[in-house]
Amino acid sequence: MKIAIIGAGAVGAWYGARLALSGHDTHFVLRSDYETVTRDGYRLRTAAGEERLFPVNTHRASATVGVCDLVVIALKATANDKFAELVTPLVGPNTTVLTLQNGMGNTEKLAALFGMEKVMAGLCFVCLNRTASGVIENFHAGRIAFAEGAGPATDRTRTVAKAFEDAGVTVSIADSHEEILWKKLCWNVPFNGLSIAAGGITTDKIMASPELVALSRSLMEELRAAAKARGFAISDKFIEAQFTVTRDMGAYKPSSLIDWLEHRPVEVDAIWGEPLRRGLAAGIPMPHLTTLHALLTALCK
Amino acid sequence: MKIAIIGAGAVGAWYGARLALSGHDTHFVLRSDYETVTRDGYRLRTAAGEERLFPVNTHRASATVGVCDLVVIALKATANDKFAELVTPLVGPNTTVLTLQNGMGNTEKLAALFGMEKVMAGLCFVCLNRTASGVIENFHAGRIAFAEGAGPATDRTRTVAKAFEDAGVTVSIADSHEEILWKKLCWNVPFNGLSIAAGGITTDKIMASPELVALSRSLMEELRAAAKARGFAISDKFIEAQFTVTRDMGAYKPSSLIDWLEHRPVEVDAIWGEPLRRGLAAGIPMPHLTTLHALLTALCK
Repeated sequence: MKIAIIGAGAVGAWYGARLALSGHDTHFVLRSDYETVTRDGYRLRTAAGEERLFPVNTHRASATVGVCDLVVIALKATANDKFAELVTPLVGPNTTVLTLQNGMGNTEKLAALFGMEKVMAGLCFVCLNRTASGVIENFHAGRIAFAEGAGPATDRTRTVAKAFEDAGVTVSIADSHEEILWKKLCWNVPFNGLSIAAGGITTDKIMASPELVALSRSLMEELRAAAKARGFAISDKFIEAQFTVTRDMGAYKPSSLIDWLEHRPVEVDAIWGEPLRRGLAAGIPMPHLTTLHALLTALCK
Repeated sequence: MKIAIIGAGAVGAWYGARLALSGHDTHFVLRSDYETVTRDGYRLRTAAGEERLFPVNTHRASATVGVCDLVVIALKATANDKFAELVTPLVGPNTTVLTLQNGMGNTEKLAALFGMEKVMAGLCFVCLNRTASGVIENFHAGRIAFAEGAGPATDRTRTVAKAFEDAGVTVSIADSHEEILWKKLCWNVPFNGLSIAAGGITTDKIMASPELVALSRSLMEELRAAAKARGFAISDKFIEAQFTVTRDMGAYKPSSLIDWLEHRPVEVDAIWGEPLRRGLAAGIPMPHLTTLHALLTALCK
């Protein structure tokens, strides 16, 4: 496949390099990392060692890439206003546009430009760090859950997931993107959010505070009620599991906390704003999320 | 009257000095300001100029003061665990113990030690700043609303209020301390709280954020519902007035924000914890306050 990677931060670079290493004609549209990656390629580090991708098909703009079979979007959701400029030159009649982004509302924004039938989503349950220009580290394998932008999985979903699987990525396939999105938000909303709103703390500090654990649970319950109103069930067991995995993470810095500490834009609208709007529109009161969203809006200005 | 001032920060020093200037035998129990105030006295500054109290009856401990007619408590509520040590030596059979402290629960803690019949409360609607050791500034006259710790105003309430009035203080008398406390919290809970939780911002920044204004209103509505469940009505007009006065304040730093910025203890339990407990105990859900309280507990550790 001819593949373009838009937004080559940790997630885009990692999966793009994996796809390139497995033989796909993969093109990276880069800004700040253009010189380094053109000169030195990508280094992918795991506990098992380092893999290198060199040379890399680097581009300064989408126009020189041309139409692709698959466009992988790993931009911060705060840059979604660049979709038209960055993605349009890559899309032809048979292109699939795959968002690997955080938060809610990305597929709808892509669909508004390219039609929902072109849009797929992959939710990344992984911890990737860009430790230097061109250097990405991953010490926890993780997985991507693929789904159509709307509707159940199709042959196309399975084909794209298979390409990632063949590139060494653990994949799963879901029949509803929105369902797994609500579930992922059950972690991101409390833990990304409280790590910022409680003053810039790691997840172990959240777990050590009875007040913040109780608040995390209230936020999850609101998301669960909103998901239910939208037709998606989230089990008690799933809610409990969020605390169990978090307890095992130790002093973890959620990605939004890192963005905030480094004075980069935080995906407030995608992670907190859109689920809040969707829940309220479905008639679910979400006072805890309303409070957290208002504070994050002020804190992440 | 023989009067002791316990907790001579801005509030204690100001009102204590006013009482001394009006002729009362007033004693100040001091820690950090002992030397300066003993040597230089108090300077009270207003737009009209400066008044000076010198000499001042200063003490390092309550024991050398002895039993008083009136004990004025202006400690931070975070120091309430010192009541037994600081107040007991001052209390005889006919002593009135008057708390001028912020927040809810102070009268009950004093009553547990001395009996509610000895306890009075004065809610200070004023902006006082201690700009240096022994120097207190006040550019807004303000007032104190006096009430019995429990029950309606009595002759004793009026006698104490009159002493303050004769010392140049604007006073009012209320038949329920708890009622005016809920009302004062309608300002302190949102504005002191959000000024910290939104990252250390002045009240004009809160008023400039539609999300934070909406959140302030939700917090006030929860307090109003809790007050109602406790038997106290708060009018729409009163709620609106909180926004009007805040708009007129400009870039104001609530006292809790100043404490927080200067790494001093913040009165989290008195301002947010106790009204939350009281509201929940009365069967009122308070999700916005629950969220804010959890975050402040973490932020003010």
